[in-house]
Amino acid sequence: MRVLGIDPGLTRCGLGAVEVDDSRRATLVGVEVARTSPSLATHFRLRDIADAIAAAIGRYQPEVVAIERVFTQDNLQSVTPTTQVMGAAMVEVGRAGLAMAVYTPSEVKAAVTGSGRAGKAQVQHMVARILSLSAPPQPADAADALAIAICHAWRGTGLLGSGSDSAVEVSLSGKVSSKAPLTPAQQAWAQAQAMQKRRGAVDPRRNTQRKNTP
Amino acid sequence: MRVLGIDPGLTRCGLGAVEVDDSRRATLVGVEVARTSPSLATHFRLRDIADAIAAAIGRYQPEVVAIERVFTQDNLQSVTPTTQVMGAAMVEVGRAGLAMAVYTPSEVKAAVTGSGRAGKAQVQHMVARILSLSAPPQPADAADALAIAICHAWRGTGLLGSGSDSAVEVSLSGKVSSKAPLTPAQQAWAQAQAMQKRRGAVDPRRNTQRKNTP
Repeated sequence: MRVLGIDPGLTRCGLGAVEVDDSRRATLVGVEVARTSPSLATHFRLRDIADAIAAAIGRYQPEVVAIERVFTQDNLQSVTPTTQVMGAAMVEVGRAGLAMAVYTPSEVKAAVTGSGRAGKAQVQHMVARILSLSAPPQPADAADALAIAICHAWRGTGLLGSGSDSAVEVSLSGKVSSKAPLTPAQQAWAQAQAMQKRRGAVDPRRNTQRKNTP
Repeated sequence: MRVLGIDPGLTRCGLGAVEVDDSRRATLVGVEVARTSPSLATHFRLRDIADAIAAAIGRYQPEVVAIERVFTQDNLQSVTPTTQVMGAAMVEVGRAGLAMAVYTPSEVKAAVTGSGRAGKAQVQHMVARILSLSAPPQPADAADALAIAICHAWRGTGLLGSGSDSAVEVSLSGKVSSKAPLTPAQQAWAQAQAMQKRRGAVDPRRNTQRKNTP
């Protein structure tokens, strides 16, 4: 499965694509950071980010796009630009006709480090280990985007279905609790998950941790 | 000046265009409501709204697009979809290369009714009077979109400039306090405002109220 991860931000927006095989091994496809200048009005910055996301979808050809949801405990003023970037990203993913998944920062951290409270450096370190990179991806936004993509490939529970912002609940049995029909990619993923489960695979998060701890 | 007003919403998004002449008379160009179904995943709903906004810009050919900012006192969960719609709208306005302005609901209400606490029915009633319509525009989202467009044509202080979400401060003297260069349309507007002032025109809001009160 190929996943494009997006770490939404108005000044720096991380875009990272990973390919994950049936045995959950993840490899880097590509990573970049779209930057916009505060000297531009916000709507022109959002346009430039939307253009960069559309170009990344074209370049990396993901089956699904995963994005990080902004912190709900932050104050509204600070999350507004990030939520607008999320809206811009969702338009481009929708135009590409792809499935989309949303995760909280702690879900992403937990998926790659085993702890929902891991720091930036720890996430960068683990992303490098998981993807067998010689150095942690820089800047942090790039590593975060890859972590979001890995999170979806391993967890896969955040797919957007019907209902406003609701997530399709894809259980490890391959059963889907959403009212919305799944796309072929989503169905394939759910089946692969069920297969994995039948083969007796352990929790991907713990599995990875063990693989990557010296 | 032709202004497209957007009342952002995921289920119903109001789109209303008005033409305002030098003497501040406003006439209706067109109004519509873009609707999306909760049976679609959020990113496909945002795509459909973005498509509708791009089509409305093409159809009505506005010089500037005004949008309503969500209430900051609302909780984050409820404003997230609306903020995402705002992001989607901003991308399309940016792609059209147009200036954009943002107003709070109370600024819009005050501009058309004289009171920032006016109710939906009062806004609908005043929009109908201002545009010389035989009946209030239905649904409320359509009237709100027109009220937002009228608000910008009369006030014009909410233009997005450089800096995140900052507004260009265009004073009635025609002086502009933003660091960002104005578009030709913005310059023309600022000059028209200054002319109006020199001619001794009173506050447009109070002026309108008087004109429209029986």
